[in-house]
Order: sequence, then structure tokens, then C-alpha cells
Amino acid sequence: MNVGNEMYELARELFPLDRSLTGDGVRRTLAVLKRELPEMTVHEVPSGTEVFDWTVPKEWAVRQAYIEDEKGNRIIDYKDLNLHVMGYSTPVDRWVDLEELKKYIYVQKGQPDAVPYVTSYYVQRYGFCMSEKQKDALLPGRYHMVIDSELFDGSLTYGELMIPGKEEKEILISTYVCHPSMANNELSGPVLAVALAKKIAAQTNRKYTYRFIWIPETIGSITYLSEHFEYMKKNTAAGFVLSCVGDDRTFSYVPSRDGNTLADRAARNVLSFYYPEYKRYTYLDRGSDERQYNAPGIDLPVCVVCRSKYGEYPEYHTSLDDMNFISPEGLQGAYEVYERILNALEYNDFYRIKCLCEPQLGKRGMYPTVSRKGAYDVVKSMVDFIAYADGKRDLIAVSDLIRVPIDQLIPIINKLTEADLLETADE
Amino acid sequence: MNVGNEMYELARELFPLDRSLTGDGVRRTLAVLKRELPEMTVHEVPSGTEVFDWTVPKEWAVRQAYIEDEKGNRIIDYKDLNLHVMGYSTPVDRWVDLEELKKYIYVQKGQPDAVPYVTSYYVQRYGFCMSEKQKDALLPGRYHMVIDSELFDGSLTYGELMIPGKEEKEILISTYVCHPSMANNELSGPVLAVALAKKIAAQTNRKYTYRFIWIPETIGSITYLSEHFEYMKKNTAAGFVLSCVGDDRTFSYVPSRDGNTLADRAARNVLSFYYPEYKRYTYLDRGSDERQYNAPGIDLPVCVVCRSKYGEYPEYHTSLDDMNFISPEGLQGAYEVYERILNALEYNDFYRIKCLCEPQLGKRGMYPTVSRKGAYDVVKSMVDFIAYADGKRDLIAVSDLIRVPIDQLIPIINKLTEADLLETADE
Amino acid sequence: MNVGNEMYELARELFPLDRSLTGDGVRRTLAVLKRELPEMTVHEVPSGTEVFDWTVPKEWAVRQAYIEDEKGNRIIDYKDLNLHVMGYSTPVDRWVDLEELKKYIYVQKGQPDAVPYVTSYYVQRYGFCMSEKQKDALLPGRYHMVIDSELFDGSLTYGELMIPGKEEKEILISTYVCHPSMANNELSGPVLAVALAKKIAAQTNRKYTYRFIWIPETIGSITYLSEHFEYMKKNTAAGFVLSCVGDDRTFSYVPSRDGNTLADRAARNVLSFYYPEYKRYTYLDRGSDERQYNAPGIDLPVCVVCRSKYGEYPEYHTSLDDMNFISPEGLQGAYEVYERILNALEYNDFYRIKCLCEPQLGKRGMYPTVSRKGAYDVVKSMVDFIAYADGKRDLIAVSDLIRVPIDQLIPIINKLTEADLLETADE
Repeated sequence: MNVGNEMYELARELFPLDRSLTGDGVRRTLAVLKRELPEMTVHEVPSGTEVFDWTVPKEWAVRQAYIEDEKGNRIIDYKDLNLHVMGYSTPVDRWVDLEELKKYIYVQKGQPDAVPYVTSYYVQRYGFCMSEKQKDALLPGRYHMVIDSELFDGSLTYGELMIPGKEEKEILISTYVCHPSMANNELSGPVLAVALAKKIAAQTNRKYTYRFIWIPETIGSITYLSEHFEYMKKNTAAGFVLSCVGDDRTFSYVPSRDGNTLADRAARNVLSFYYPEYKRYTYLDRGSDERQYNAPGIDLPVCVVCRSKYGEYPEYHTSLDDMNFISPEGLQGAYEVYERILNALEYNDFYRIKCLCEPQLGKRGMYPTVSRKGAYDVVKSMVDFIAYADGKRDLIAVSDLIRVPIDQLIPIINKLTEADLLETADE
Repeated sequence: MNVGNEMYELARELFPLDRSLTGDGVRRTLAVLKRELPEMTVHEVPSGTEVFDWTVPKEWAVRQAYIEDEKGNRIIDYKDLNLHVMGYSTPVDRWVDLEELKKYIYVQKGQPDAVPYVTSYYVQRYGFCMSEKQKDALLPGRYHMVIDSELFDGSLTYGELMIPGKEEKEILISTYVCHPSMANNELSGPVLAVALAKKIAAQTNRKYTYRFIWIPETIGSITYLSEHFEYMKKNTAAGFVLSCVGDDRTFSYVPSRDGNTLADRAARNVLSFYYPEYKRYTYLDRGSDERQYNAPGIDLPVCVVCRSKYGEYPEYHTSLDDMNFISPEGLQGAYEVYERILNALEYNDFYRIKCLCEPQLGKRGMYPTVSRKGAYDVVKSMVDFIAYADGKRDLIAVSDLIRVPIDQLIPIINKLTEADLLETADE
Repeated sequence: MNVGNEMYELARELFPLDRSLTGDGVRRTLAVLKRELPEMTVHEVPSGTEVFDWTVPKEWAVRQAYIEDEKGNRIIDYKDLNLHVMGYSTPVDRWVDLEELKKYIYVQKGQPDAVPYVTSYYVQRYGFCMSEKQKDALLPGRYHMVIDSELFDGSLTYGELMIPGKEEKEILISTYVCHPSMANNELSGPVLAVALAKKIAAQTNRKYTYRFIWIPETIGSITYLSEHFEYMKKNTAAGFVLSCVGDDRTFSYVPSRDGNTLADRAARNVLSFYYPEYKRYTYLDRGSDERQYNAPGIDLPVCVVCRSKYGEYPEYHTSLDDMNFISPEGLQGAYEVYERILNALEYNDFYRIKCLCEPQLGKRGMYPTVSRKGAYDVVKSMVDFIAYADGKRDLIAVSDLIRVPIDQLIPIINKLTEADLLETADE
């Protein structure tokens, strides 16, 4: 559980930082991640830059924000919870009565204790968010609405880490840093990406190059693609959006638009053995940056493996998606699933048995020497692997067919290779 | 319900005419249809003409026909119900006793009140049809069998209406006029074809050319194909046989032999949204002119959407398939289904979104400006359409995938086209 | 039931012969089969011959073998049941106490009355097999272990029968002769092969050439393939391993590795009509010589149709798989299934109707002349066959689609061919 605890502690450190699409909250977040991964590079893209059909927005900063009553009681304060201010609110400093105040208050209907997460990135307005209980407790009277914020030409900030492998072909790991105070639907992704990047960097003999990116959602992936799309389209073997990977309720899978890319096949293979009851969604249930990676003409082989999927759990996009909602165990489980998926991809190849007919395993000490009822079963995984090692099915396909996890096939592959009985199809 | 009523009234007018494979009953029927559709042309093909493996039969006329008892009581009379005479009966004028008479009487076993519809087109004989009750009530005695009929070299008659569109590619609508006194399994088809032809003719901007034909079943479609087969094979985009479209019990679908032509796909798409419980048959359940259109070597993309399918309802091919069996509501429902199918075909194209990544709908007023939990749902149909508008799937395929009826996608297509965000793949 | 009885009597004659991988038991068995099929040729392959990854083993002979107690009582004797000696046991002549004796005794756990069938072909050792009851009844004391056996350079023996047809394309029928005293999992196969060979040889007008082989399992098929692989790969249209075809509990099917070869399609077609509840296994359940025929690079179109499948019935590989386990009825059923499968293969072709649109069956006396409700049904098989006789689907595919067994389609094919309405696609 070490990795799970490390990830959880890192998320706890990042939780209070006031992230948004842009701004210093994001920069401070990336600085913490870069402390963990010194090779990470941080990039700034100026406001106003045109990226496909979009424009990089102005930068947003909040110095302070609150609502006070006539006696000077702070009803809500940005310092306590950054969700209390609608994201990208314009400045305001007004005394209003209760009726007028309510026009600027957003609550989450049906969840009386939850403060909703609300933004207005592309139309200028201001607003406050609170729980229904808080709103219902407001007494008639005068209130002071204060948002000391600024929207200014600045830049959009993102982090990138390339870990080179033997091949130019890449695995993309994309996650986002733009939601304030969200544990599952934000921090679980960046901290899992950090843990996976450390693991990959420590491995020698990587086949693939790994591209890790920490970006603001939607505008970040669009911006990043506008810069790197041509190269990525040529070189991406598989990719995953890390989002909502910290709770321990379930595992979920959202396919790519194509539905059967290498990323999809590796993800389904691993989940089918270790979490056979995982929730299968369709591409119609997409919601994070896989929307951009799979857009027509982009068509990257990117899918999502997560735990409780965005949009599907009640705490989603409210103050209840906090550090109590995720756990070291939940993060650890997601880490192990992605570790297996990446392992499957690294070992995936078209293996071919080198002799005609079955090899004589007995003379190599790889088969029971007494032949009797049931003797065959103890070497079933090996003989089934051999039976399908025809150079036409890749390892994932063989594992799917013979129902043996790739983790258990790797030692068999190694043994057969040592015995000079196995080659890959390009040998 | 106006169209339903109009169709029903037209069927009522046509019901008493004594149609057969050939003859004046068919000509009088086509004359009534031509009154509704003055552009229709009526064609005559001489008896003896060789059409593929068949020969156009002689023409059949009945002046009078009846069975009388010794006291001059008419047991049955052709004037009352033309089903009482076996179709294509040769002339007879004989006094016989009851035992001999019975050799010439056909009844419908198990349906004591039904007079069956029986023909002998290709072997010369004569016969009478009555209900089991009528037959059982016959007393011993002498009977006068009279059929004053004639089989002579004449012609086979059919009607045709071409409604030109922007393209040479055609939609075929085929229906039949050869059954005497059948409401569902005959007149529902010709009157629905009339209503659809009027609607199509009134539409401007038709993509497809429409070929409507009113023919005798089997020999008519064989004759028509022998004349038009080469052109139709090159130009038919989709076709439908209209038969049994007047009752209001259910909807049914008989696929083409191929099973997945454009006609099939449009039919299944519409039925899956509006009548998801529709009865799915296979091509083994075929029975009308789709048999000829789908024959090996002909291979036109023709399927059947009907209500209670021929051969599957007890009233089929008996006197019970009368004007009480069909209804204005039943005809109206079929009209609306075919209207949607033809609309789907007209709008079907390979649409492609013009920008890379998702377009920014917000700046065009096509997306909620406040982003919060659930905001996405209100534009789900549009973003799902965009997600699959890759120029590789046609509209029917996208509608099938995203489970939004084409009727609801058409305004979205129009909006996106106006915003210059959408093109068709051949643009 | 004549064939079933003949097969059963032949199996009874062969049952006592002491077959093993090699040796005189096999030679005597083949001599009996050759008496039935004088055209069969018997082949010897010297010990030490390299065959792909394997080597032809030494020949094994047992003169006598038993365990005696101090009083001279024979506890078990090879003469009574050849399963009592582990196959390929090296010689021994030792007095031992009970504890030591038990190290050399093999029993079948959980089946107290069964003597297991155990071999050690590729590591030299000796051993005895007995029932658990026999072992448990052994009293403390001294025992004399005697195996007067010999392992020497000799040869591997197999039988082959080629029955030429009009084409070079072949049907392979492979069965094995190497198990001592096994009725279902041995003799049912060789005797069924004899019966089928007699039937095929008696047929005139064979399309296919038939290759029957009687070989020792595994090493025999590897040896045979090493000699004939290139030719067989080019010319084998379909093949079947005959094994476990003598009991009457069920029918089973093990697909080829490919899963959809002509052999598979013919097998599934026949079973689906005559034994629709047959047990469907996957290639993961393989176990006999289909392992070699389907190995990567060999890839022959070979599957298995059997009754109770090897490894799946409790009597398998024990003394309970005896002449009581199989029956004339069981053999007869398997014979009939294979007869139908071979018939399906002989008649399989791409048939094409020669006219456009449906042919007029009526004028040829092939259709009811009175047309009324239900008339169509009596010729349904014929019209459905015609509807799919497009020269693109083979007979098996058409039979699968229209759900009419090939046995019932053959007279239709003959009738249509006589009427000059049908041709094959290569005509």
C-alpha cells in the first residue's frame, strides 16, 4: 500500500490550492508535481492564442471574495472553500438585499449539504456557490457581495514529461489540473500520473516512449493538440485519460470512439481478469479529454479506465468530492490496474512458435513425465499459449482467447524464448 | 387524420371492382388512381409476351356466375362477392347433383364464416368458393353451376408514376392491384402509394427520383422487371413493397435478401424509434413482390414494412379481409412511418464536422454559458452528432449509434450547416 | 443396425490386443483392419527418426509382468489386463516389502474400482496400475515385482488407405491405435473409420479423394505430418479425428483452431439438424490429434465430432472404458452423423439458379396449381433454396440459412438440375 499512501498524501497537499483553467493555482500545483518529477517541463500559452476553433482565455485571479451581512458576519468566504466563487467571476462590490442576492447564488438541488462547482468561462458574469442549507438559512436583510478578482491577458499553463523508450511509438497519459477542491474528479488523476511516471522512469528496457501531460480540461487538450497533433497522430500507440481514479467503489471503462484500439483492448483485457464486473460504458458516456482525443480527424487511440465515473456518482462536481471520498486503497487499486495495462502493452507482440506441430516439452522438463488423466492440465496455460502463438494474433488477443492473464503469460514467454521455441513475428 | 381518412375513402371506392391478374377490373382500378394522380401512365403488355421464365397470361373476364338450386334460388352469386368464383375459372353451364357440386367448391377449413380467395392462373379449371357454413347448409338436390367467363388474348395492365428528383438515383415504391375484394392485402397498398406520391410530388428539393408502380402481383413484377431491370439495377437506391398497410394491430418488417441494404437500414432505424416492438421477420417469411426484386441476379435493395403481415393474420386471403379489417388510423400510421423512412433517405448523407477537436459551441450561443453538473445534457444530441460526424458514417448509422431519431437530427444538421461547422463528405 | 453391430464385433475382436505407441500389439491390430480393408497399406518408421521437434521412440515389448506375494498369489497380471503395467515400463525383477511396492503403484483417486491407464513414454521408469480397492487390500509382506519388458530400436507402425476421387482435394479421416484395452477412447475410432472407408469405397462418383489413417496418437500424427505435410496442406479440404465415437450418451463437437473451416461448417450443419442439443466445446478443449493438425503453420481444416468427449466422462483413461461402455447403437449413431457430414461435403457447391426472377415452377408440375392460403408452404424448401441459389453461398451456407437439412436439399438439387434451372457457379 506504499504507493497508494504516497499518492494520497500528495493529493492532500494539492487539495487546497485554488486551481482554475489558468492562473497561479495551476502554477503552484505544477510546481509541487515538478518537485516529484524534476524532468517535467512547464509551458505557458498566451491568452488570445487561437487553438483550432477555440481561443486561449484570459487569466483569472481572485485576491479575496466573500458575502457579509450587516453585522459583518462572513456568510461564505473564498478562503474557506474556493468553490464558493463561480469560476471566472468578474469583480463585484455591492450591497444588496436578500432577494437580489439570491439571483447570484447557485446551489445543488437535492443535495442540501453540497456546495456545487460552477464556472462561466466564456460569458462574463459573477456568482457565488453555497449549500442549499446555507441558502435556506439566510435571513432578510442587506448583504455585501465582494469578489476582488481580475481577468487579464496572461497565459494557460500545463506540465509535460516525456520518458523516452526504444521506439518512437508513444503511450499517452493525459490528466487535468483545473478543478479547485475536487479530490476524485481532479487530484486522483495527477497523482496517479506522477506515480506511474516514476515507475516507468525506473524501468529499463522500455519499448514505448511515454508522454505524460497535466493540462486544464478541454481548452488544455485542445491547446496541446493544436501544438502536437500531427506528431501524436503518427506516433501514438495507445493513450489513457486519468480521471476519477481515487475512490474504491468500482472500476469503469469508457471506450474510444473507435472502440477497439490497442488502448481499449489492453484495458478490457486487464479489467476482464481482475475486475470482471467492471462497468462498461459506451463512447456516448464520454466526458473528459477523451472527447478531444477522439474527435473526428484527431482519432487518437485513447480510452478511459476509471473508478466511479465522472457524472455518475452523486458527489461529482460538488464539495462532497473531497479527500474523504478518495482513499489510499482506491488509488492503489487504480495504480495496479494501470500498471498491468502498461505491462500488457510493453509485452504485446505477435509471438510465433518456431517448430511445426507441438514442441516436445517433455524432453525439456516442461511437461509431466508420467502421462495420465489430468496430467495435461498442469501445463494448460503453456500449451494453450503455444497453440495460438501463430504470429497472427498479438499477445492481448491470445490472452483474451485462452483466458490467461498476461501477467501469467510473461513467464511462459520467457521460458519458451530461452528454450529457443518462440520468436516474434518480425524476427 | 386527414390523410388516413382520404386513403380509407379511396379504398372503399375501389373495393367492389372485380380485379384479377388482368382485365377490366384492373383497368377501372387504375382509372380511379389516375384521377388522383393525373401524371400516372397506364401500360398494357399483350398476352403471350415472354417475360424471363414466364409468359403473360390470357385476359380473363366474367360476365356472370352463380349456383342455383332447382327452385331458382341463387346459392351464391358473383355479383354479391367476386371471391365466390375461383380466379381464372373457365366457363361452365352444368346441372349436377350435390355430390358432384361439392367437387367444385372450396372452403376455408377452421374459419366457418370466411369465403376463401382461390385462383388457378396457370392450369385451366373452374370452381366456386363459399363459407363452410354455406357449404354445410346445402341440401341434397340438383344444382345449376354457371360461369359465363372468357379467357382470351388481351393484355396485362399496370400503372406507373415517375417523380423526378435532383438525382437519377431512385426510390422504388411497388404495390399491387390484382386481388378482388381484399382490403388489407390489396387496397391498403395502392391507396398508401397514392398518398405518398402526392406528398412527394408536393415537395420541392427532392434528392431522389421516385418510381411508383401499381402492378399485378408476381407476373406483374416479373413483367415490369423484364422491361426495366437493367436501368433499375443501376439506379435503385432503395425500394419498398407496400402490402398489408391498413390494419392497426402491429408493425412488421421483412428484410431484403441481403438484409442490410439502404432500404433495410432506413426501415429499421425508423421502426426502432417509433415502434420498437415491431415484428422482425426474416427473408424466409417473404411473400409478395420482394420475392422478385430480391431474386438472385436481380438483387434490388427492396424490403417490406407492413402492419399485420400477409400470411400471418387469420383474415388473410379470405372474405374477412374487408373494409372493417382496415381503418383510417391504421393507414395513417403506415403513412407516417413511410414518410419518416423517405425523409431519412432524403437527408441521409455522410456528414463531417469542419474543425478539428470539438467546435466551441458556446461562442455561437449553442451551449449553456454556465457550466455545471448536467449542463452538458441539454445539448447531448448535438454533441453526440458532432462526435460521430466523421464523414465515414452516414446519417442513418449515426442516428442508430447515438439513439436520436433522424427527425430530431435534421434541425441540428441545419443549425450546424448555417454555422459553417458541417459539410458532407463529397463537398 | 447392421453397421453398428459389425463395428461393435470388430471392436470386441481388437479389445484384448496389447497396443501401445509401438510394437506387435499395434501390428496385430492393423492386420485385423487390413483383413477388412485389403487396400490398406501398413508402414514402419524406424526408432530414432527425427520428426519435427520429436524423435520416433524405441519399440516396447512385454513378455510377461505381474506382482506376486510370498505365497505365489498373483496380485495382478498383465495377461488379465494390460493396463496393469505402466506403458513403456522398463524391466524389473525385485522382491520388496509393501511400503516399497506402493511407490510403484498408480491408482485412480475417487474411482475405487477403476484401474487407471498410465504411461511414461519419454522418461524411463517402471510402474504398476491397479484399482484403489486392490491397493487397499494389500497386506504387509514381501512382494515380487516382475516386468519382463524390452525397449529396443524397432519402429513405429501405422496404417493408411487412400480412396481416390474425381478431385485431388482430400478428406482426411484420422484415428489412433495405441491405447490398450480402451473401447470408447480407442477402438470406436478405428472401427468407425473401417466402416466409413467401406462405404466410401462402394460409392461411385466420389468428388473427393479420401485419406484414412490409423496411427499412434501424437507421435503418430507428428510422424505422419512430417512425411506428408506439404501435400496435405495443399490438398486437404476437410478432416476429422475419430475418437470416442462409441457410447450413446451425447454428441460433442470440438472446432478447429480456425473455427470456421469447411470441416467445422459441415459438422455443425449436420449436428444442428439431427442433434441440436449437441455439446459445443472450444478449441481450448482439444486433446487428440487435432492438436497437431491445427498447430500453427500446419493449419489443416480438421475438427472433431465425437460422442462423450475424451477427458469429459468418468470412465475415460481407466479400465471402465471397456466394451460395456460402448454399444452398437452408439457406434451406429456416430456412423450416421459422419455419413451425413461426408455427404454434405460431397454435395457442397455454389449453386446458381439459371433464370432471372423466380422460375415458373407451375408449368413444370413443381408447384400446386390451385393457389390458396398455405399452398406455398408445400414447396417452401424448394423456393427457399432457389431464393438463395445465387452462386455466392455454398450449399452448407444455404442449408444453415433456410434451416433445411442437406439430405432434403439433394433431391431438390437433382430435380432443378434435370429441369435445367440450376447450375454450379463454376459452370
